[in-house]
Amino acid sequence: MSGPQVCMWPIKLALVMALAALFELAEVRAQTATSAGPVAGADAALIDDIVTGSRVLADFGVLDGFGHVSARHPANPNRFLMSRSLAPALVTADDIMEFDLDGNAVDARGRTLFLERFIHSEIYRARPDVMSVVHTHSPGVIPYTISQVPLRAVFHNAAFLAAGAPVWDIRKAFGETDMLVRDVAIGKDLALTLGDKSVVLMRGHGDVTVGPSVKLAVFRAHYTDVNAKLQSQAIALGGEPSYLTPGEGAKADAVNLVIIDRIWNLWKMRVPTPPAK
Amino acid sequence: MSGPQVCMWPIKLALVMALAALFELAEVRAQTATSAGPVAGADAALIDDIVTGSRVLADFGVLDGFGHVSARHPANPNRFLMSRSLAPALVTADDIMEFDLDGNAVDARGRTLFLERFIHSEIYRARPDVMSVVHTHSPGVIPYTISQVPLRAVFHNAAFLAAGAPVWDIRKAFGETDMLVRDVAIGKDLALTLGDKSVVLMRGHGDVTVGPSVKLAVFRAHYTDVNAKLQSQAIALGGEPSYLTPGEGAKADAVNLVIIDRIWNLWKMRVPTPPAK
Amino acid sequence: MSGPQVCMWPIKLALVMALAALFELAEVRAQTATSAGPVAGADAALIDDIVTGSRVLADFGVLDGFGHVSARHPANPNRFLMSRSLAPALVTADDIMEFDLDGNAVDARGRTLFLERFIHSEIYRARPDVMSVVHTHSPGVIPYTISQVPLRAVFHNAAFLAAGAPVWDIRKAFGETDMLVRDVAIGKDLALTLGDKSVVLMRGHGDVTVGPSVKLAVFRAHYTDVNAKLQSQAIALGGEPSYLTPGEGAKADAVNLVIIDRIWNLWKMRVPTPPAK
Amino acid sequence: MSGPQVCMWPIKLALVMALAALFELAEVRAQTATSAGPVAGADAALIDDIVTGSRVLADFGVLDGFGHVSARHPANPNRFLMSRSLAPALVTADDIMEFDLDGNAVDARGRTLFLERFIHSEIYRARPDVMSVVHTHSPGVIPYTISQVPLRAVFHNAAFLAAGAPVWDIRKAFGETDMLVRDVAIGKDLALTLGDKSVVLMRGHGDVTVGPSVKLAVFRAHYTDVNAKLQSQAIALGGEPSYLTPGEGAKADAVNLVIIDRIWNLWKMRVPTPPAK
Repeated sequence: MSGPQVCMWPIKLALVMALAALFELAEVRAQTATSAGPVAGADAALIDDIVTGSRVLADFGVLDGFGHVSARHPANPNRFLMSRSLAPALVTADDIMEFDLDGNAVDARGRTLFLERFIHSEIYRARPDVMSVVHTHSPGVIPYTISQVPLRAVFHNAAFLAAGAPVWDIRKAFGETDMLVRDVAIGKDLALTLGDKSVVLMRGHGDVTVGPSVKLAVFRAHYTDVNAKLQSQAIALGGEPSYLTPGEGAKADAVNLVIIDRIWNLWKMRVPTPPAK
Repeated sequence: MSGPQVCMWPIKLALVMALAALFELAEVRAQTATSAGPVAGADAALIDDIVTGSRVLADFGVLDGFGHVSARHPANPNRFLMSRSLAPALVTADDIMEFDLDGNAVDARGRTLFLERFIHSEIYRARPDVMSVVHTHSPGVIPYTISQVPLRAVFHNAAFLAAGAPVWDIRKAFGETDMLVRDVAIGKDLALTLGDKSVVLMRGHGDVTVGPSVKLAVFRAHYTDVNAKLQSQAIALGGEPSYLTPGEGAKADAVNLVIIDRIWNLWKMRVPTPPAK
Repeated sequence: MSGPQVCMWPIKLALVMALAALFELAEVRAQTATSAGPVAGADAALIDDIVTGSRVLADFGVLDGFGHVSARHPANPNRFLMSRSLAPALVTADDIMEFDLDGNAVDARGRTLFLERFIHSEIYRARPDVMSVVHTHSPGVIPYTISQVPLRAVFHNAAFLAAGAPVWDIRKAFGETDMLVRDVAIGKDLALTLGDKSVVLMRGHGDVTVGPSVKLAVFRAHYTDVNAKLQSQAIALGGEPSYLTPGEGAKADAVNLVIIDRIWNLWKMRVPTPPAK
Repeated sequence: MSGPQVCMWPIKLALVMALAALFELAEVRAQTATSAGPVAGADAALIDDIVTGSRVLADFGVLDGFGHVSARHPANPNRFLMSRSLAPALVTADDIMEFDLDGNAVDARGRTLFLERFIHSEIYRARPDVMSVVHTHSPGVIPYTISQVPLRAVFHNAAFLAAGAPVWDIRKAFGETDMLVRDVAIGKDLALTLGDKSVVLMRGHGDVTVGPSVKLAVFRAHYTDVNAKLQSQAIALGGEPSYLTPGEGAKADAVNLVIIDRIWNLWKMRVPTPPAK
């Protein structure tokens, strides 16, 4: 137990503030507009799926003030759609922007961008089958990102986990960082660990889910969180739980592709409308 | 850690889509109506119990977008009543349909049916005393479906568990499946494991509760979930918990049959009305 | 795994129904009124405390459809006030009735009584200092009712637990029962185990808290539940937690007697009004 | 199991009431006003941050009826701002008072003060860098206050924990107390254990978080609670979790200083307005 070292504080505070200022610069900021119309040429229904998915996951607590939902551009596979930097619960159609696969905003109009947009750009580049990417700080999942215990499929709604859910550790390739996927190189490394799976866990951070549609990537983000909590409870009972086999997982996940609308429609009806900005 | 195998994806995706299309065909779909009036000859109070029970369990999180509540037809023991395929929170009286004990809709009028209606039909066939069946993906219970630890009665409201709650594993008789009770044979096997009990757990899936009325089957679905969570907490304290004996269970369950209306009336007052469809 | 024993069911069902009918008789029912005005001579503020406490504990989930809050009659120490049989969330001033210390309703006017009113009558008889009694199926506490691990005070708001919280097992004196405190003898045995403590746990059932006022008995019911959950989490971390000493408990509990209004006023403002009956 | 010792009760009760009366005197009470206008010379935005932070943490359950949020006076570093004694969910701008670093109210106007204001005064005295202090009974954290297991940073939002979160035990210097920081000496001892950290845990009580702004002290109070719950889940999986290194923690915490407004704005939009007093 040491006494307060008061004399050190002004120096420490100055250092932190300087660091903060540097990070600030890393975000693209403008003096003018902070909002704009939706992306030209993009399907209104797709944009609505991004908005709905963001709010649904915020309502479930899978997202809090952070995290994001994106979709590959339907007309141009080298572009994707994602909100400007904003809490997911507050996202509206007007906040959706267009990005290229280097993570550059096509028409920024001064809007602030998510630092971690390279999660999305590099997965779209590496995985032509992926049409949507979701990044969360899912509370059920975070314990598995720092544990030696692998996340496995405990029930059929999370069947996509039966193929495996690798854990990516930013420290392996990049040493001690601020834990963020803040450039192309880090995004590439994350996409490499994702491989051909539906979910990748990020050590000390959260997870990423992908899918052939926004609805399914959101469905997977939700059920990855649910599955993680259930698996933790099963482990706590003692003994080795009986997980879904890869064969069961593949078959059951195919069913999820069909029944998604039953639960999506429920979610859409229930999702809270954000307060006016 | 392997790199992305991009070239494999179109093939994988096509396979999944083909599988999905096959499952789609397994559901009875129509080009025309998606809703119709309630079942002829059935008690409005009974239909209201099904609707209320569905919404109550959804409100508790025992059901999410999936699961179903049914009742044996009061005038014809070879028929039962269940919603068309719909999230339980959204079920209204107009969504209730009539089925025979082979799981066929008596008057489908183009409505989509639950794939797993054979859970209900085969239990009604095997158990003349059962007047209601509830199927859930109860989050408290799922850990017990994949554990060697049996679910046991920790308190008097869940006294019906003191008689035992067997775990049914679809893989024993049917190998690697999509985990669903999608035909008569699978339903028969599940009913065989249920035996004369009030609850059967389904490995990697959920549970089924039955009762002499909708109110009691719903009550049991709720308190099975509550009991499971309490038992998990008791186990986590260490040592062997002291469960209700079968004798205590039988006596305490008889009380539940009497006091059910006190809690049902509370639930009915509280249950959220679904948004307009 | 045994097959369905269908032929046994009508007999079993008949037995259960007969038992249920017997229990039904044990409740005092009337052909006429089911509601009446509040108790004559009783303080409106005290009745309001009972109503508020019932709804607050229901709102916290400490009570669900069951459980009850009572107060000793301010003018007659041989009488106490408690709701007719009703879910706690629905209790209003008009539902409060007066009882003697044998558990008889002074003026039943056909209202249904709680089977377990003997919890209250026998504690008021044994403990002249007790002015209020609360019975719950508190979800945090139930695991401790079936565990060898004693409930202990983890923080100052639950300081009253530092004096000890004994577990009462109905089976020791009464063998296999329906677990309910349904007569004077069982109530006396429970009061004996409570002794001079503030809390007694009931094996496989719930708990009872007492206090020098309704506010404090309700406060203790809430913080017993909170403390139990926190203790379970502390135990799960591994090692032996460091509990409050009896000396700390006595001093900290005295503070609770002073600051109770700060949290009671908050609760009172927040408590949901029940839907119209 | 001992019988009720009824004859002891009047004596015990009298002792408790006497103690309670003594504590009551320790609170500054007035015969007149119980509310007054906001602090002169203080920034309205700062007062709004205190009010918003109090309500946000109450909404999260990090605060219940107890706990408090304060800010150093922007114009006078020897003064700080804090609500009169009131449940945090009910705090409004009019409830904010000004205190000196001895914990004296500058202009009490008869308002009741928090007994534990010395937590704040002594930390402001010892730590010139600290601009805000939050005291909570955070449910995720309390288990760590009585455990040998240290609280450590599991993810980047709680990066500030990577520098360490010491546990302060009031008993070491003050013996058996009522657990409260009710004078200058106890406050000094707590501040000594806090040292140069952002968080200090209080054995059997709760925690204190500090920061360079109200927003960050509130952010840290919330994420300390979140982190504690996640760490508990990680520990329950078995094996040794992989925590953030101090280097990662320092870098990631600097990011939190930048992105705080994204989540603060969300919280501010969502925070419930208290009912009229």
